[in-house]
Amino acid sequence: MKTRERILHKSLELFNTLGEPNVTTLLISDELDISPGNLYYHFKSKIDILSELFDWYEHEMLALLDVPNEPMDIEDQWFFLHLIFESIARYRFVYQDVVNVMERHERLKHRFQKIITKKKAATLSILSSLQTQDSLRASDSEIEALCENIILTATFWISYAIVAGKHVDESVLSRGVYQVISLVVPYLEGEQRQQLQQLKQAYL
Amino acid sequence: MKTRERILHKSLELFNTLGEPNVTTLLISDELDISPGNLYYHFKSKIDILSELFDWYEHEMLALLDVPNEPMDIEDQWFFLHLIFESIARYRFVYQDVVNVMERHERLKHRFQKIITKKKAATLSILSSLQTQDSLRASDSEIEALCENIILTATFWISYAIVAGKHVDESVLSRGVYQVISLVVPYLEGEQRQQLQQLKQAYL
Repeated sequence: MKTRERILHKSLELFNTLGEPNVTTLLISDELDISPGNLYYHFKSKIDILSELFDWYEHEMLALLDVPNEPMDIEDQWFFLHLIFESIARYRFVYQDVVNVMERHERLKHRFQKIITKKKAATLSILSSLQTQDSLRASDSEIEALCENIILTATFWISYAIVAGKHVDESVLSRGVYQVISLVVPYLEGEQRQQLQQLKQAYL
Repeated sequence: MKTRERILHKSLELFNTLGEPNVTTLLISDELDISPGNLYYHFKSKIDILSELFDWYEHEMLALLDVPNEPMDIEDQWFFLHLIFESIARYRFVYQDVVNVMERHERLKHRFQKIITKKKAATLSILSSLQTQDSLRASDSEIEALCENIILTATFWISYAIVAGKHVDESVLSRGVYQVISLVVPYLEGEQRQQLQQLKQAYL
């Protein structure tokens, strides 16, 4: 791996474990055993590194959220949800210090808000598809509130787990998927509801 | 107000608006138009200020969470929820930078986790009381997942609003109460459900 790539990967690791506000470029060069000058040759400041890692995150998340228009079956939908949680975990520095990071970087804030908007649109599209298939029964205002709660849970589940003292591993991600499924189940009808209840157990 | 009190109130304001990690003791003394030496006379470091403000928050929250054992009627329960959201807003610096603040202050993390545990117990007690009154129909595992989603929503609603670019005002708090009610409604039976649906509208 080239130095530039190594800097980015190490920074991602440090941001995720220590929180972006607590990582300095000096720490990054120290951890890589390179001189601060060498790091500076590739990146003029921590913001440049942060910005490039945010590009990675944004690229991955937007590709994921580009939900196909044809209806997904229910297993696909939860697989999709699992991919979203994995991506959030991979870039958890964005989420765990989200208010702080966004307040200090106005441009990232704007891009993050666009991602949230896309997440809402993808969620609404999934819920509406369930609604037209008569699998989900809810009023429009219920769907709106449900959608908001799904995004909130997906956005902050990992922060919540960290604060509760948990190590972010596969079981924490699965539990996040489980919690989101729990939000939807009460609105589902008959067969779909049973199918999802069963699927839910797999995540416990 | 004595200087000591003024320092605490100004710090709370600055922590809430700028985020605790971005506030220095120099900024606090500057904003109060007192010398850094004068501030230092009262507080040896920012951590001392943070710790005392956390005491205030903890005191207020634990008093609130000391839910009486007799069953509350449904209006009382939502009034209680509103008080919780107000308290979270008053001390939002704890929540909006929660991962960062807790990672840097191990002792506060422990105390915050105890508050979360108390919140869960209070929520469970309310849900169980609804269950024994036959107002709520849910299995034990559903109640457990519901409880977790309620705490998550209450804990991160304000962070979510800030990231979405909203100014934290009365309408944001009300919407938080609304979102929590939305989590519970699908499990309620007949009259209670209608009552809560109506109450919910008042929060929109």
